[in-house]
Order: sequence, then structure tokens, then C-alpha cells
Amino acid sequence: MKRENISDAVIRRLPRYYRQLTELCSRGVVRISSHSLGEEMNITASQIRQDFSCFGEFGQQGYGYNVEELRSEIGHILGVDQDHHLIIIGAGNLGHALLHNFPFHTTGFHVDAAFDLNQNLVGGSIKGVPILDMEELDDYIKTNTVDVVVLTIPQAVAQQMADRLIELGVKGFWNFTNVELSSSDPQVQFENIHFADSLLTLSYRIANR
Amino acid sequence: MKRENISDAVIRRLPRYYRQLTELCSRGVVRISSHSLGEEMNITASQIRQDFSCFGEFGQQGYGYNVEELRSEIGHILGVDQDHHLIIIGAGNLGHALLHNFPFHTTGFHVDAAFDLNQNLVGGSIKGVPILDMEELDDYIKTNTVDVVVLTIPQAVAQQMADRLIELGVKGFWNFTNVELSSSDPQVQFENIHFADSLLTLSYRIANR
Repeated sequence: MKRENISDAVIRRLPRYYRQLTELCSRGVVRISSHSLGEEMNITASQIRQDFSCFGEFGQQGYGYNVEELRSEIGHILGVDQDHHLIIIGAGNLGHALLHNFPFHTTGFHVDAAFDLNQNLVGGSIKGVPILDMEELDDYIKTNTVDVVVLTIPQAVAQQMADRLIELGVKGFWNFTNVELSSSDPQVQFENIHFADSLLTLSYRIANR
Repeated sequence: MKRENISDAVIRRLPRYYRQLTELCSRGVVRISSHSLGEEMNITASQIRQDFSCFGEFGQQGYGYNVEELRSEIGHILGVDQDHHLIIIGAGNLGHALLHNFPFHTTGFHVDAAFDLNQNLVGGSIKGVPILDMEELDDYIKTNTVDVVVLTIPQAVAQQMADRLIELGVKGFWNFTNVELSSSDPQVQFENIHFADSLLTLSYRIANR
């Protein structure tokens, strides 16, 4: 189902709902009201009901939500059951950290390969993911499904690499380069991790607590 | 100046304004209207004026903002001129990646030390930051100013480490452990980097583009 006109703010709350519901499941909570869910998440109950109404009816008035069902429905909306294919470009410290510690499978992504220029890394593997030579990148993308590319490469080459990948047909980027990437193709999606925004938010809170 | 009752959404937009204004400065833009700034950032002009009004008057009606002045004022609000002191706990792949690539100084933070259990790392340094033994942590915190602790340690020990640090007086945490940390002390600030939320947002957009 294709959805349109759902605000960015609502979309960004979905993963938070999913995370909270996963935690409630693990605590054995079976049913929860929008009021209680809101208290756990510091969101109003009416905001929650409004958010969910964008995607259909999940609960029953006055009866609350079945935690496991709601988690599964939101997971489905987020695509955690879609087995997306992902590759990582740049197997340096950050690439290593993601491969070692980030549970890609819980988000519905399968990491098929990592690419690097460093010949000491090429030919090896991290957590079962092969590290391939950057030279093989174009051929790889032409012959394999790649839904998302994770960019953990230096800033200076970020936009140029993105342009090359978009030319090859890549439409999804998880961008750790701290460069605001862009494309004239509206189909291309960039999701940027801005570490600095996060640290500055903390800085503000420290100064104003 | 202590500010109160400013919404989380406004606070989270401040670093984005700061980033955008930094980029405008580097492009040599001297003056910008709220309308043009809004277009660059995909925010309405009235939202921008409303956000800024929380902090006083920055522009002149009908005349736009001086980019450099506005950047400097927002930077000041965010505390980039405060020289906060920060230590990193966990000098593994992610700790390394941050030390090597994240420009802490541009956000007003000085990285004084990193701590790790690994005796192969202890005694060394990364980009001039000494790596100290975890055994020295308590003494270090008792005798030095530590505004923020960056947690890049395994999930299993995250809350326990946070509790220990809070007991020692630490009030700011930049948390990469993917564990939702908590404290009964309202003065303690946690800023969590949730990689999964970001990737799931991308997953949603790919499925619904």
C-alpha cells in the first residue's frame, strides 16, 4: 500500500512506537491504553490516536491496544518484514562498529557486502559479511539487488560517491558522512545521521537545565 | 540565561538552523529572509519566526536576518562557545570512529580522555586524546570537570555504568549504547543516538515512495 501526505514528524515517531512496543513485549505487557503508552513515551494520548489514524484502526475504543499485534502492524508499516538488501561503503572504524554491533536483522535489513579501498581489509569478512574491493562496486550493483547503501566514507568524496551510485540506480542512502547529500531525482531517499545535531541538543540542555 | 518551557521540537530544530547557517556562511550568503531560509530547510517561514521568537528578536521585519550574526546567536544559545568537557567511555570501533572523524571542537566540546578496559589500548592516544584505564575512571571524575560522558560500551553494562557515573556526579550522557537509559534525578540529561530509528525511517520511505 502506498501512503501519501503523512508528515515527517509522524513517520519519525513510528520507529519510536516500534521500539517502545518491543520493550513492552519483552516486559510481558499484553495490552496498553493510548494514555499509558503516551506516559511511557512522553506523548499525549490524543497525539498517539491521531498518529495511528493515519494508518487505519489499530485499537478498540476504551479497550486499548494489543501490544504484540500493534507492534507487528507498525513493524509491517516500517517494512521490518521486507528483507531489504544493504551494502556498506567504507569498512573503517564506523563501518566496523556498525557491522559488529548494529542488529541489522531486527530492522529487516540483510547486509550483503562491505566495500573498501584498503587492500588489507579486502578479501576478509566481518561477522560473516565479505569485504570487497571498491573496484568491484559498479559490477556488484549492476548484478545484485541493493536497496540501501550505507555511506561511511570521508566527507570529501561523499557527494561524488553518491552521484556515482545514483547513476547506477541506487535509491536509498543511510548517510553517516556528515555531508548534506542531494539528488535531483525525487525517488532517491537520503537518511542522514547528524551526530552534531544530537550533541548540540545535549549541549543546549546542559546549559539550560 | 535559563530558559524554560521551550518545546523539544523547537530545541531539536536549533542545531539544524545552526548547521544551515554555517553552510550559508561558507557559501558567502550575508543576509537571508525567513522565507528563503525556510525553503532551504523545508520549514515554513512562520515556523522559523515562531521558533526564533522563543529566544528574543533576531531579525528586523521585512529586512531578513544577517546570516553570520544569526549563526553566532544560535551557536551561543546552543553553547558552542562554552568549551564543555567530555570524556569517552569505550574506545572500541565506535569510540575510535568518533575520535578520528567527529569534529568535537565545532560543537564546543573538548575531549579530555577516553577510557577502556583493553590493556592494549590503555596508555596510547588517538588524535591526541589519551586512553586511560577504566580503573582510573572514578578518580578522574572526582578530580576533573566532566560535563558529558559519551557511552560507547556494550549494551549489557550500559545502565550499570550510567548509574555509577551519576553517583559520581555526571549529569550529561551522549548515549550510543542503544539502551534507553534512565535516572531518577531530573538534572541528568540523556541524549540517545538511536541508529535503528533512523534506518527504520529510511525503510518506511523506501517502501512508500
